[in-house]
Amino acid sequence: MSARVLLPWTDIDVPEELGAAYYDGVGAPPANLGDVEVYVLPYDRGPEPPKLIGELPSLRVVQSLSAGVETLVPLLPGGVRLANGRGLHDLSVAEHALALIHAAQRDLPRWFAQQARGEWAREHTRSLADSRVLLVGYGSIGQAIERQLVAAEAVVTRVASRPRPDQEVHGVAELPALLPEADIVVLVLPDTPATRGLIGPAELAALPDDALVINVGRGTAIDTEALLAQTSTGRLRAGLDVVEPEPLPADHLLWTVPGVVITPHIAGGSASFYPRAKKLVAEQLRRYVKGEELLNVVES
Amino acid sequence: MSARVLLPWTDIDVPEELGAAYYDGVGAPPANLGDVEVYVLPYDRGPEPPKLIGELPSLRVVQSLSAGVETLVPLLPGGVRLANGRGLHDLSVAEHALALIHAAQRDLPRWFAQQARGEWAREHTRSLADSRVLLVGYGSIGQAIERQLVAAEAVVTRVASRPRPDQEVHGVAELPALLPEADIVVLVLPDTPATRGLIGPAELAALPDDALVINVGRGTAIDTEALLAQTSTGRLRAGLDVVEPEPLPADHLLWTVPGVVITPHIAGGSASFYPRAKKLVAEQLRRYVKGEELLNVVES
Repeated sequence: MSARVLLPWTDIDVPEELGAAYYDGVGAPPANLGDVEVYVLPYDRGPEPPKLIGELPSLRVVQSLSAGVETLVPLLPGGVRLANGRGLHDLSVAEHALALIHAAQRDLPRWFAQQARGEWAREHTRSLADSRVLLVGYGSIGQAIERQLVAAEAVVTRVASRPRPDQEVHGVAELPALLPEADIVVLVLPDTPATRGLIGPAELAALPDDALVINVGRGTAIDTEALLAQTSTGRLRAGLDVVEPEPLPADHLLWTVPGVVITPHIAGGSASFYPRAKKLVAEQLRRYVKGEELLNVVES
Repeated sequence: MSARVLLPWTDIDVPEELGAAYYDGVGAPPANLGDVEVYVLPYDRGPEPPKLIGELPSLRVVQSLSAGVETLVPLLPGGVRLANGRGLHDLSVAEHALALIHAAQRDLPRWFAQQARGEWAREHTRSLADSRVLLVGYGSIGQAIERQLVAAEAVVTRVASRPRPDQEVHGVAELPALLPEADIVVLVLPDTPATRGLIGPAELAALPDDALVINVGRGTAIDTEALLAQTSTGRLRAGLDVVEPEPLPADHLLWTVPGVVITPHIAGGSASFYPRAKKLVAEQLRRYVKGEELLNVVES
């Protein structure tokens, strides 16, 4: 019997050299997985699927579909390689950032509330066009967001951990000077010691009245209590897909602030992720059976 | 005393050759307007401001800030020229189309309802990226929408009243062949005899399951009852800024369909309209005092 790959989907082509087994991370995994050499982890299915990593005696490769794989590294048996899902979620996250911006600028919560009452009452709104957007985090997601902002005729200023003058990217050290000129701040930062609490009371106070704070990176970048204080008075607004802590407790006051829209960390998981993920997995399997170098291998 | 312009805003520069009076369309107009030669109509303030057109004995020019001015033409005294607000709303309308698309694809009504309950429950959503969008109406608004769709990596097919093969624009006669391939249809059509009822029962039936119908043009383009029938079963979804009739009656069933989001014809009136409108008015006043040809003059 040939080696097998354990896949979360049945609708991708598997090279003829490999057999396949399927586990979508929802029910129990199949039995008799002794011949599984490649395990493609089901995406965003909680803590159960990673546990299987230690129970596959022939395992050679773990393919995660997430970009961040810190929690998987300690689970890897010796000699098992790990590849991540870097880039698969970029467009989905970028698109969700735009959804949050539009929701806030065009008052969508108000119209949906009116719809529930059958009420046709009109008022002009803010817009994204002409808004000055401070984009903090200029990796591949930030660049995808920028393309959509520019197409909407917003005016973008780029910020990253370190300045890149050749690309007109400012460093985070310049935030105090940049924040007062921003109508919208978009945070697309990973959780690192350097990004934790980057946007605290002083940074929020530096924003002009009515500014909008968008976060699609990690919740730790913002001091939640400071944001609550500045949004509760109506001085600032926010659109958050990530918060600190997650899940946000049911009785947290942030849920109830009128100028704050919250989605439950779902930016990365939209339909556009799947075709990209399946394409990556198909390519990895092709490389695996040919003995070629795998993509996105994480050094451990 | 010099001639005057009657303006809706106090914050634009008026050429020194002209005096200015102000009327924002909300309260009563000022008295003693006998010397007003140019009347810039307050935008979107209902039926009162146009009535003033017949009461200004020195009137030479009416500047509307709307694109459609059919209702003003019969009010014009002989020799009074009319200029419209063509183009001022393009970006605002385009942006609102994107807001409606994102709201529908990323399930915003669901997350806002969860937020109201303090509920953190996650699920993957549809996306705009990779979606096949049929853009029906390819004037300046349609082109602005297209730029934003392309930046979001949607796949756009262009349709206009008449085919323009050199621009890859299909004619509406090809809709029966194009609709079955559309995940999202965006309607940006004026109200004309040719567009009324363009999207009726047969056209809606031709769309694939779960397709999204967006309308930011005029409500008459869609057969409302047919749309209600196809959305009520959950087969199609819709995002509508315009409907037929307007205002939509409070007891209309369309308000209550889960897959339908409705905003009350507010696409054109966002903040990005004002700077563009003020720029146009400033230029018109400059041209008026210099005796140059005015922009956007409507032939009557």
